[in-house]
Amino acid sequence: MQEIILNEDPMSKRYLPNISVDSVIFGFHNRQLKVLLLRFKNTEMYALPGGFIDKGEDLEDSVKRILLERTGLHDIYLEQFGTFGSKQRAYGEVHKAVAEAIGKTFDPNAWVAQRFVTVCYYALVDFHNTIPSPDPASDLCDWFDINEMPNLMFDHNEIVQQALASLRLMLDHKLVAFNLMPDMFTMNDLQSLYETILGKKLLRTNFQRKMLSLGILERVDKQWTGGAHKAAYLYRFDKNKYEEMQKEEANSIGK
Amino acid sequence: MQEIILNEDPMSKRYLPNISVDSVIFGFHNRQLKVLLLRFKNTEMYALPGGFIDKGEDLEDSVKRILLERTGLHDIYLEQFGTFGSKQRAYGEVHKAVAEAIGKTFDPNAWVAQRFVTVCYYALVDFHNTIPSPDPASDLCDWFDINEMPNLMFDHNEIVQQALASLRLMLDHKLVAFNLMPDMFTMNDLQSLYETILGKKLLRTNFQRKMLSLGILERVDKQWTGGAHKAAYLYRFDKNKYEEMQKEEANSIGK
Repeated sequence: MQEIILNEDPMSKRYLPNISVDSVIFGFHNRQLKVLLLRFKNTEMYALPGGFIDKGEDLEDSVKRILLERTGLHDIYLEQFGTFGSKQRAYGEVHKAVAEAIGKTFDPNAWVAQRFVTVCYYALVDFHNTIPSPDPASDLCDWFDINEMPNLMFDHNEIVQQALASLRLMLDHKLVAFNLMPDMFTMNDLQSLYETILGKKLLRTNFQRKMLSLGILERVDKQWTGGAHKAAYLYRFDKNKYEEMQKEEANSIGK
Repeated sequence: MQEIILNEDPMSKRYLPNISVDSVIFGFHNRQLKVLLLRFKNTEMYALPGGFIDKGEDLEDSVKRILLERTGLHDIYLEQFGTFGSKQRAYGEVHKAVAEAIGKTFDPNAWVAQRFVTVCYYALVDFHNTIPSPDPASDLCDWFDINEMPNLMFDHNEIVQQALASLRLMLDHKLVAFNLMPDMFTMNDLQSLYETILGKKLLRTNFQRKMLSLGILERVDKQWTGGAHKAAYLYRFDKNKYEEMQKEEANSIGK
């Protein structure tokens, strides 16, 4: 009888069982690194935006579909950084709490209450172009400073920390940080982003020299501030030059 | 009827459905980077060692269990490097060929013939301590030079290439290569390993200077060669110093 209920669950028909995807969506605003979080309806339970893989859908397409729903954005910069598969990752308790909060009966055998291995991506978006939208189970979808996040469901806090560690590792290797910047920015803005991601202060002259030496910044114009301070140059990230550079990059050891 | 068959399949009772694990096991021998491969019984079909996750087992424990079975080794250095989830990853064709090769009837609805998302790890082992052992579906488990591998099942060739790319990225970052060396080695051996992984020649003096400057090599003794050449020093990797160093390591940009 139980098997029949499972097989008739519409989730069971549409999605691969026991596998989910979760995304750590990073944005940068007011010199803070932000993460997009959802709150389950009528609860104080927060979680990363996530979902499931359609039976006929590529893994990465499922992530893009969910990211589009939550942010309104196509063509988001995505990196898969880890798959989490502790046997503790069974959603029973969470779904019980959610069911109670919205006055529904909890079914411990429901498709969605089982164990899930989750494949995780981080996404880098331009904060100002993002339109956060809750999913059907949530009443809030909003940005939180990575240093002031609430307790998240399950291992989601750990997943955010691993996403940050992976982002740090990729800063030098793939210069991914530019995906978090608006079209034009000052050197100060860029340094502030690096400092926020790395969690430490950097020397201004060294940072500027290193960034300019990469040959991927196009100087656009001075920023008119209207104030008494010296106007700062605006820069634009040159994606074509960057892609050429990536091709030429090789591991530096021994050179 | 079909549902009942699926549910009665012993694989279905034991393992999470639609998720597999695969391992790229690297060894180093005769100045070649080797990968451990399996060949399905009575076929010329080769594959990476892999398997499934017990319903009550942590993801990483399933990988360790399978690695122990294939290599006889405990405490293997492991890195998860990617999860592959193309919708094309349905095992029907493979299992049809395997069933035919061993004279069994192929069931397209069998548990093992479905789509699998696979979580992949690379493992670094000491070649000389490894005892390759085929799994029940294979008649061969052996080392292949990474540059002379046969065509592998599915996307397994691509998975090996991604493992190698990830290993290259981690060479500098985590100095993982030492896991491929025997207890004692010459600087020449080590340089040869780096050159093999990176696929290029390195300058001897620079390589030696860089390695010694890391402060993680202990000079043990001279290697007695019995020949007319100058004897080479033997080194040992100092794991304690390495672990201290890892803690202190920070991203180098801006410094």
